[in-house]
Amino acid sequence: MRILLIHSDYLKYKTKSKTRIAEKIEDNKKEGVYENALVVFTAVEKEDEVDMETVVENAINEINDVFGKVGAKTVAIYPYAHLSSSLSTPDAAKKILTNMEIGLEKLGLNVKRVPFGWYKSFEISCKGHPLSELSRTITAEKVDKEVSDD
Amino acid sequence: MRILLIHSDYLKYKTKSKTRIAEKIEDNKKEGVYENALVVFTAVEKEDEVDMETVVENAINEINDVFGKVGAKTVAIYPYAHLSSSLSTPDAAKKILTNMEIGLEKLGLNVKRVPFGWYKSFEISCKGHPLSELSRTITAEKVDKEVSDD
Ligand SMILES: [Mg+2]
Ligand SMILES: [Mg+2]
Repeated sequence: MRILLIHSDYLKYKTKSKTRIAEKIEDNKKEGVYENALVVFTAVEKEDEVDMETVVENAINEINDVFGKVGAKTVAIYPYAHLSSSLSTPDAAKKILTNMEIGLEKLGLNVKRVPFGWYKSFEISCKGHPLSELSRTITAEKVDKEVSDD
Repeated sequence: MRILLIHSDYLKYKTKSKTRIAEKIEDNKKEGVYENALVVFTAVEKEDEVDMETVVENAINEINDVFGKVGAKTVAIYPYAHLSSSLSTPDAAKKILTNMEIGLEKLGLNVKRVPFGWYKSFEISCKGHPLSELSRTITAEKVDKEVSDD
């Protein structure tokens, strides 16, 4: 799993049209506005399918850690296939994203999950402090904290 | 090289603080606002160092192609290390990004290059049409057009 964590002033999104793998959504998920959100752009990868439970657990711990450090109010899980060139099946992705949502909620966080498989417009404002953009590669074994400045 | 192309209503950025690899910039590059911009988030990778010239040429052709299709007015090259876990040296990255800028300008495009190695705040509004988010892996040999829906 590759994740890109953006500490944002706000995230807005609006669903536009379905792709062939769109999840069914209620009307209240068609758009959203979240302030002071830690946006977790997430690409679920092929190798995550081997031990989904541990990958989810590692992702939750990492996200919770960053969430505490930056002082965000909401976590927004945003499916983002563009972070990887080795994607899981859509079914595995939906399962893992949903389990991340459930797990983070169990920790007491306010969690929003942006719909999977839809074309969406979005607006985001990244705060720009040193922890406001972080990327991680998460596997069943470990979390790779890539050190990079851009 | 990994690139993420976002057709945006606007991109705004503001430099906040330097990292240890920050490029020197003039005052007029400290912030920018670009409307109807194709934002090219770019991670230059280790293997790009072997044949920089061809990688740059392939990147330019690909960006120019997407630029024509979406009808953007400006290309904004945005250094974005978070798209790869196998980065080039900062010097190679700066050289490649600059040569992309020069090459695209030679094709007659209006090009802006966002400063390398600075912490920046940014705001972006992604249009949400099917071509408004695309990612590519570009090498000296070829361009991989990853087909993905999220
Ligand atoms: Mg929820
Ligand atoms: Mg220029």
